[in-house]
Amino acid sequence: MSNPSLLILPGDGIGPEVMAEVRKIIDWFGAKRGLAFDVSEDLVGGSAYDVHGVPLADETMAKAQEADAVLLGAVGGPKYDDLDFSVKPERGLLRLRKEMDLFSNLRPAQCFDALADFSSLKRDIVAGLDIMIVRELTSGVYFGEPRGIFEEGNERVGINTQRYTESEIERVARSAFELAMRRNKKLCSMEKANVMESGILWREVVTRVGKDYPEVQLSHMYADNGAMQLVRAPKQFDVILTDNLFGDLLSDCAAMLTGSLGMLPSASLGAPMANGRPKALYEPVHGSAPDIAGQGKANPIACILSFAMALRYSFDQGAEADRLEAAIEQVLADGVRTGDLLAEEGVAPVSTAQMGDAIVAAL
Amino acid sequence: MSNPSLLILPGDGIGPEVMAEVRKIIDWFGAKRGLAFDVSEDLVGGSAYDVHGVPLADETMAKAQEADAVLLGAVGGPKYDDLDFSVKPERGLLRLRKEMDLFSNLRPAQCFDALADFSSLKRDIVAGLDIMIVRELTSGVYFGEPRGIFEEGNERVGINTQRYTESEIERVARSAFELAMRRNKKLCSMEKANVMESGILWREVVTRVGKDYPEVQLSHMYADNGAMQLVRAPKQFDVILTDNLFGDLLSDCAAMLTGSLGMLPSASLGAPMANGRPKALYEPVHGSAPDIAGQGKANPIACILSFAMALRYSFDQGAEADRLEAAIEQVLADGVRTGDLLAEEGVAPVSTAQMGDAIVAAL
Ligand SMILES: CC(C)[C@H](C(=O)O)[C@@H](O)C(=O)O
Ligand SMILES: CC(C)[C@H](C(=O)O)[C@@H](O)C(=O)O
Repeated sequence: MSNPSLLILPGDGIGPEVMAEVRKIIDWFGAKRGLAFDVSEDLVGGSAYDVHGVPLADETMAKAQEADAVLLGAVGGPKYDDLDFSVKPERGLLRLRKEMDLFSNLRPAQCFDALADFSSLKRDIVAGLDIMIVRELTSGVYFGEPRGIFEEGNERVGINTQRYTESEIERVARSAFELAMRRNKKLCSMEKANVMESGILWREVVTRVGKDYPEVQLSHMYADNGAMQLVRAPKQFDVILTDNLFGDLLSDCAAMLTGSLGMLPSASLGAPMANGRPKALYEPVHGSAPDIAGQGKANPIACILSFAMALRYSFDQGAEADRLEAAIEQVLADGVRTGDLLAEEGVAPVSTAQMGDAIVAAL
Repeated sequence: MSNPSLLILPGDGIGPEVMAEVRKIIDWFGAKRGLAFDVSEDLVGGSAYDVHGVPLADETMAKAQEADAVLLGAVGGPKYDDLDFSVKPERGLLRLRKEMDLFSNLRPAQCFDALADFSSLKRDIVAGLDIMIVRELTSGVYFGEPRGIFEEGNERVGINTQRYTESEIERVARSAFELAMRRNKKLCSMEKANVMESGILWREVVTRVGKDYPEVQLSHMYADNGAMQLVRAPKQFDVILTDNLFGDLLSDCAAMLTGSLGMLPSASLGAPMANGRPKALYEPVHGSAPDIAGQGKANPIACILSFAMALRYSFDQGAEADRLEAAIEQVLADGVRTGDLLAEEGVAPVSTAQMGDAIVAAL
């Protein structure tokens, strides 16, 4: 049997630097744990645009469809700000999500004990925080038609369409309930059913799916209240289920609560492939951070934890994922810190590569 | 000349209780400062539904159109959860906003010094916070067509439409720039121009309007990053301009940062009427809080501060608004607290009415 395949798309900004550290981890698992992957690398985002004139070449898209898992760094940067909408770096990422049909985006917001003081929130509000946001990722206003800027009378109008079918809501709801079953069996679904009909349908379908999971305590919340409650008392949540656009804002809000943005991974999962593995793309929650790109300052942990999620969700290697996460906690407990994790002036931060090396050493 | 008219719509839940305290304040200004208003009262939300079968009767709508200012308490409650979408309490509020064409919603997020410790955020992150969110209120996905739940093949689809014309963006942008000129001359506009064409048009029009305000330092931010930055370092902002839906989430998030939700007012302003005053509706940011309704526990300050905004924005009585705000600060400094403002157990909170009386006394 051949090794499982891993397609690596480092992307833009700090993407390539943090991905270089992930490669060290992958190599370690191949050498030391007999977990070998067929790794290939390709371009996405601005770096793809520079070469191909598009943020994702068709051949790359085809490779992603074949891969057992895709690992992505980050896309975007000021260099590409004035590009036409259709070729912006983000379109490469959105094309991957859409064509691979990665409808379920898992965004853990976890507060690492060693780092709780980095949060802008009071320690007791966030210490021990561990919530999972499940964001629908292939529909809603991100992809609904009609969309565009149109002439209307003597002015222009910008239009986007929020659109959810019952089956789209059902499949992502099901994935959220499954997750809740493996966690603390609490699910809070967020929409604006008081204002939007798409939210009414959302609430109705989620309620119906919930009947299949009687053990899960289901609640509903308007998304604006959800934003408030995340800030007020985030530990009231276990799993949060929401749509593409609300999920974009709410998951970023939740991520920032932890104070450890450079630490947060994500998984985007689709339907099972012929080999039983889900289509899957893993990426850090942080962006391309153009201001520090190329300086060896970036924190590679979010990207490494994204690989840990790949081990868990794509390769059924939960124990190895635990091993990797434990190594990271060890390194943090030892006080190894990249610049983003340092509060006091005068303490020297380690570089991106040094952090990667420390994690390999801890493994 | 007749007195300016004030239409009071107490609404549901704690609305009537907090509004009763506002009446005391209004009476005081009439008796002591020669600022008499012709006050009338009517129904909105669930309480209107109970009487008229609709959450806003046509006659009430007509009165609101004629009033020099409308003061609203809150709408909604569990009793009305199963009503049809078209007659839900919220529709009454949305009808007022839409038909009065109140396009500019001003939501100050201010952290009161005496209450900074109530925030879930660290004191130094929020103490002294004073930002103003300008939310577009009459368009976007709240009102765009097509909307509804439709049959499609053998399932249903929920659809809402995000829609902004250039002139809709321009007028709210102008109101935000005007406000910025009277504040710290910094404006941050938030959208998702990286994903939504309506956001591209938004950014373009705001940039163009900004040319008329060269003194204002204009920046743009994606709304998800905006949610993050609000949590990370809210004091970086002065005025934030955003659309109806993003504004709903972001303003609630910002409100919660202050830890003083029971303290935050809002103003919704439209075009000038024949008498030069803008069409205007004032309401607290908090909701109808059905859990404590009718118990005399609610904090009336947000609603009283909404009246202060009316004095300032509708009646050109900035000095009287200052006077009212100072009285409230005085009362807080004296340690008078409703239940929501009390941290320690054992200290007795004052009732809604006692808080109102204390403010009248401080005046
Ligand atoms: C880069 C951008 C297109 C993307 C999104 O809006 O989904 C990002 O913000 C995210 O949350 O992954
Ligand atoms: C009550 C509801 C319709 C309303 C809204 O969504 O605008 C509220 O959340 C608000 O922010 O004023």
